[in-house]
Amino acid sequence: MQTVQYYQEQFIAYLEEFTKQREPENLYNPVNYILKLGGKRLRPVLTLMAAEVFNCEYQKALDAALSVEVFHNFSLVHDDIMDDAPLRRGQETVHEKWDINTGILSGDAMLILAYQLFENYEATTFQALAKLFSKTALEVCEGQQYDIDFETRDDVTIPEYLKMIEYKTAVLVGAAMQMGAIVAQSSKEDQEGIYAFGKNLGIAFQLQDDYLDAFGDPKTFGKQVGGDIIENKKTFLYLKTLEFSNANDKLQLQHLFSINPTDAKDKIETVKQLFESSGASEATKEEIKKYTEKAFSVLEHLNISNENKAILKAFGEQLMNRNV
Amino acid sequence: MQTVQYYQEQFIAYLEEFTKQREPENLYNPVNYILKLGGKRLRPVLTLMAAEVFNCEYQKALDAALSVEVFHNFSLVHDDIMDDAPLRRGQETVHEKWDINTGILSGDAMLILAYQLFENYEATTFQALAKLFSKTALEVCEGQQYDIDFETRDDVTIPEYLKMIEYKTAVLVGAAMQMGAIVAQSSKEDQEGIYAFGKNLGIAFQLQDDYLDAFGDPKTFGKQVGGDIIENKKTFLYLKTLEFSNANDKLQLQHLFSINPTDAKDKIETVKQLFESSGASEATKEEIKKYTEKAFSVLEHLNISNENKAILKAFGEQLMNRNV
Repeated sequence: MQTVQYYQEQFIAYLEEFTKQREPENLYNPVNYILKLGGKRLRPVLTLMAAEVFNCEYQKALDAALSVEVFHNFSLVHDDIMDDAPLRRGQETVHEKWDINTGILSGDAMLILAYQLFENYEATTFQALAKLFSKTALEVCEGQQYDIDFETRDDVTIPEYLKMIEYKTAVLVGAAMQMGAIVAQSSKEDQEGIYAFGKNLGIAFQLQDDYLDAFGDPKTFGKQVGGDIIENKKTFLYLKTLEFSNANDKLQLQHLFSINPTDAKDKIETVKQLFESSGASEATKEEIKKYTEKAFSVLEHLNISNENKAILKAFGEQLMNRNV
Repeated sequence: MQTVQYYQEQFIAYLEEFTKQREPENLYNPVNYILKLGGKRLRPVLTLMAAEVFNCEYQKALDAALSVEVFHNFSLVHDDIMDDAPLRRGQETVHEKWDINTGILSGDAMLILAYQLFENYEATTFQALAKLFSKTALEVCEGQQYDIDFETRDDVTIPEYLKMIEYKTAVLVGAAMQMGAIVAQSSKEDQEGIYAFGKNLGIAFQLQDDYLDAFGDPKTFGKQVGGDIIENKKTFLYLKTLEFSNANDKLQLQHLFSINPTDAKDKIETVKQLFESSGASEATKEEIKKYTEKAFSVLEHLNISNENKAILKAFGEQLMNRNV
């Protein structure tokens, strides 16, 4: 096993080769642009790590890792159109730099390229990878649809919310790791185990994102603290506060999540107080812990060395401490 | 072998099963809507016919046929967004009935569903189908990009135009037939042959579409005669007229293709005269004949019965006479 940084570097070198000039330029330049925008490359690194954890050279997993990254970026391109987002990683989004049609068509090409990247694997591995990929990709679309649906619904339940974040973000983390296990030809049980590890860690990470949006340190969080509150986003904290609050507090919160004040400072403060006084903030921390522990407990049953178990656990802890 | 109508009916029954209610509704209702809008189902019928031509029951090819049809409809949904088209088969387009975001996301789901439909085939067949599918789907995206690029270019060559229609429409016809051959486990040579048959017939059909847009019978053509001229579309007829014309006629045609008169009657008449007097109309008919004959000549080398060769040829003739 190597360090996370090592896998990142190897992956980026491989990505560099992939993002060569292709024709028609107006189709492929946006593909290369978004793929080179940067990011931590967490998902592909997880694929490479998973392969090595199951005693397979990471090199064999590079195509699968690239497929995961291409798919992830495909979803960013199309989601940014849907969200009308001007910026991604501090740079112009594809539909902003080019136009919406270019974003749609280049995104489509990326989804196809992601499947093509499996073609160097022999038939059984190819089929296993493509099957997992299709199932996961469809769930990501469904998660995105639930997220859109929730914007206009006022009766979203906690289980519905959890399913949404599981589909929209966590299943791809699980699938990224399982792909490494598939390439390594590990057993079905180990494949399911590493998938569950990644998925539960992904849910924990997303719930923590909700939490940090309100209570994170502005210096280290990366995004604007209070952003979800300003946008009236129905996060886990919000839904849990509604569940725990008396009628008055509930009405106040619902009112605050129906307005868009120019200066959101007071709104953010009041909402945060409600998140805390209701006990929702504490409950969210508990939930994050629950999913993190669920992820770690799966590790025990994997047929891998204790050393590798320790490596995966350390990686999970680093991720949850936002140190990756 | 059965009649085209029989395969159409069997396919529609299979499609009916596939378009069942799924959640989230806002993602899958548009998928089912576009798939049930109708159409001649030519591509999936070709997949079923090709399977039977190579002595395989059409039932085994139903999933591959459905995949081709789902992909074709995916491309319609996304193309209609890009073209801002309000109607498809006389009904509202998906982005018109719902909205653009729904069109994007439901289209994405369809592309994934098309791959999933190969999952019931065993690994080697699965890989062969998915590989051909990815290659073809990417070419369709490239063809669409070339088509968009050509709108703002005034130096499009005939070979470039031919490549564009080959990618945008003909390769899918070839792939639809090759998929039937793959399911039937026919030889590599036969697979390539039936692909070439479909592709060349597809090019001939598209060139004929260009021709009929100007010279077709308004009663039978289906689309508005003169539509391409009104929209200043650089079709084969247009490019060939530029090639064959003297400087004066060339300037006149270029001028006519830069204006958008309210009443296009005179413009259409003058353009049609230029198409004819330049010899472009005759050359287009020759080109259509060339590709049709190229398609038929491939048939001779296929390892299938003479009866089946005759059936494929008759189908090609029916198609070119627009009687399917």
